[in-house]
Amino acid sequence: MSKRRYAIIGTGAIGGFYGACLQQAGLEVHFLLRSDYTVVKEQGLIVHSAQFGEFTLPTVNAYRDVAQMPPCDVVVVALKATQNQILPEILPHVVKEDGVVLLLQNGLGAEDKIAEIVNTPIVGGLCFICVNKVAPGKIVHLDYGSIKFAEYSSKQQPSGITDNLHAIAHDFQQAGITTETSDDLLQTRWEKLAWNIPFNGLSALLNATTAELMANKATRSLAETLAMEVAQGATANNRHLSAEYLQNLMERTEKMKPYHTSMKLDRDANRPLEVEAIFGNPLEVATEKGMHLPHIAMLYQQLRFVDWKIQQAKRQLHSPL
Amino acid sequence: MSKRRYAIIGTGAIGGFYGACLQQAGLEVHFLLRSDYTVVKEQGLIVHSAQFGEFTLPTVNAYRDVAQMPPCDVVVVALKATQNQILPEILPHVVKEDGVVLLLQNGLGAEDKIAEIVNTPIVGGLCFICVNKVAPGKIVHLDYGSIKFAEYSSKQQPSGITDNLHAIAHDFQQAGITTETSDDLLQTRWEKLAWNIPFNGLSALLNATTAELMANKATRSLAETLAMEVAQGATANNRHLSAEYLQNLMERTEKMKPYHTSMKLDRDANRPLEVEAIFGNPLEVATEKGMHLPHIAMLYQQLRFVDWKIQQAKRQLHSPL
Repeated sequence: MSKRRYAIIGTGAIGGFYGACLQQAGLEVHFLLRSDYTVVKEQGLIVHSAQFGEFTLPTVNAYRDVAQMPPCDVVVVALKATQNQILPEILPHVVKEDGVVLLLQNGLGAEDKIAEIVNTPIVGGLCFICVNKVAPGKIVHLDYGSIKFAEYSSKQQPSGITDNLHAIAHDFQQAGITTETSDDLLQTRWEKLAWNIPFNGLSALLNATTAELMANKATRSLAETLAMEVAQGATANNRHLSAEYLQNLMERTEKMKPYHTSMKLDRDANRPLEVEAIFGNPLEVATEKGMHLPHIAMLYQQLRFVDWKIQQAKRQLHSPL
Repeated sequence: MSKRRYAIIGTGAIGGFYGACLQQAGLEVHFLLRSDYTVVKEQGLIVHSAQFGEFTLPTVNAYRDVAQMPPCDVVVVALKATQNQILPEILPHVVKEDGVVLLLQNGLGAEDKIAEIVNTPIVGGLCFICVNKVAPGKIVHLDYGSIKFAEYSSKQQPSGITDNLHAIAHDFQQAGITTETSDDLLQTRWEKLAWNIPFNGLSALLNATTAELMANKATRSLAETLAMEVAQGATANNRHLSAEYLQNLMERTEKMKPYHTSMKLDRDANRPLEVEAIFGNPLEVATEKGMHLPHIAMLYQQLRFVDWKIQQAKRQLHSPL
C-alpha cells in the first residue's frame, strides 16, 4: 500500500505535535489552521520536544479553508471537544471515501456524533502526553507522548484489532510515537476517564498540579473516590475497571512529575473547558442506567460554573464597551 | 444595674465594628489587638459604615497583653475560629467571675471548647453582616449588621431566653444594632450553617460572589443540595430545618446584593480558612450518628486543599530562602 495522506483538523498542541512528527517521518500531512495560519505559512511549524529535540517544519501544507484541502486517508481530529460543532462543515470535504477519521480527544460520545457525519470507519486515539502550544505555530512537548488506538463500533461492541488500527499505529510508530492498540474503544475510553475525571477536573478547579493533588490527603482521597465512581459509571456501558487498575493509576500519578493537565492549561488560558465530553456525557450514560455518581456530578456542576465565568469574561472582552 | 464593661478579643472586622459601635453608644470597651496595636493606639479606630456613616474612636482602650486588661462583664470573642487555640491563655484573665463570654463566630463546636476554659455562661452570636478590615484600625461596614443571640447549654438543650440574652441584646440595641434572640443555640447554629456551608464554601472555592452562584444554574442547584444536606446534618443534633426555611434562604440570597463572603475574603487575603468550624465539626457530628453527607464532605476535602495551599504559600514566604 502506498503511503497514507494525513489531514490534521485543529493544529493546536496535540494536532501540531503529532502532525509535525508524521511529516518529519516522511508522510504527506495537510494542516487546517485558523488563527495561526499566517504565522505557520511564513515561519513553518516549530516543535521543542524533550524527547525529539527541537525541529522545524519549514514548509507546511497549511490551509485556512477545508475546501482547498485534498481528500485524505486519515483525517486526524485534534480540535478541543468544545469545537466539535464545526465538524459537519469540515469532515465531508476532507475524508477519502475509503479513508478513516482518527479522533484524538478525551471524553465520551464524540464518535457517535462523527458517525452521523461520515460513513467511514472511526478510530479513537487516547493520548498520554504533556504538550502545550506556547505561541502561534510553536509547540512545546514536555513529557510522555504515547497513544492508544481503538476502533469505534456503533453497537458499543469491541471491534477487535482492525487493519485500520495496524495501519495508523504503523505510521505513528514510524514517526517515533509509542503506540498501543485496544480491541475495545469503550473500555479504553472509560479507563482514560478514570484519570481525566479526577485529575483534569480537580486540577482545573483547584488550580493545582497532579503532584499537589496527590500530596494532600484530602484531595488524594477525593481523587480515589472519583476514580471509583468512574468505575461504577463504566458498568453502565458494560465495561469493567478493576480495583487493581485504579490502584495502579493512583500510584503512577504519584510518581509522575508535577503535571499541568490540559483542562488546567485551558482554564489558565481562558479557553472553554471540555466539561461535556469528560463529565457531562459520562454522567448522562450513567444516569440513563439509573446510576447516581454524586461526586462526579458535583465536580461537573462546579466546572460548569468555572466554564461559565470563562465565557462571561470573554463576552465582556468582546463587548463594544 | 450599672453599665456592663466589654472586652473585645480579636479586633478585626467583626470585633472592631461591634466594639466601636458599643463604645460610641457610651459603653466602656477594652480592645485586645496584635498587629494593629500601634496604629490604633495612635490614630484610633476608624469605621466607614454604610448605615452609621463615618466615625472615629479617637481614644481606644487598646491592649497588646491580656494581663493588662480589666475584668469585663461581657468578653466578646471575635477571633477567626482558626485562632481559637489561643483562648485558654486569654479568657481566664479577662472574664469577670459573674461575666459572660459572647462568641461571634460561625460554625459548630467552639462553645464546647470555651466551656472547658471558663465556668461562666456562654452566649453565641450569629452575625449577618458584610464588614471588612481594609487597613490596620480601619473598618468598612458594607451591609447588614444584625446579630442573633442564643445561650449555650452543655446538654445541647434549648436554654430559653435568658437574662444574659436580654442584657447583651439591650446593649447592642443601644449601639444601633438590630438584634434577635433565640431560645435554642444549636437550632440557630444549624440554621446559619445552611447558609454558610453552601455560600461561604462555594464562594471561596470558586472565587465567586453569592450573586454569581445564584445566577448559574449548576451552582444554584449545588447550593440547594448542600443546604438540604445541612438539614440532614441538623437531625444529628435533633434539630429540624424545614423545606420552607431552606427555600426562603435561597430566595433571600438571590435578592441580596453581590456579596463576598467572609471565607472568600479570607482566601483573597491568604488567611487560614475556617474549614473545621464550618465544615469539619458539623460533618463530625453527623458522622457520629452514622450520617453520610457526601456533598458537604467533598466540599470540605476541596477546601482543605485550598487552605493547605494558603498555608504552604505562607511557609514559603516566611522561609529563610
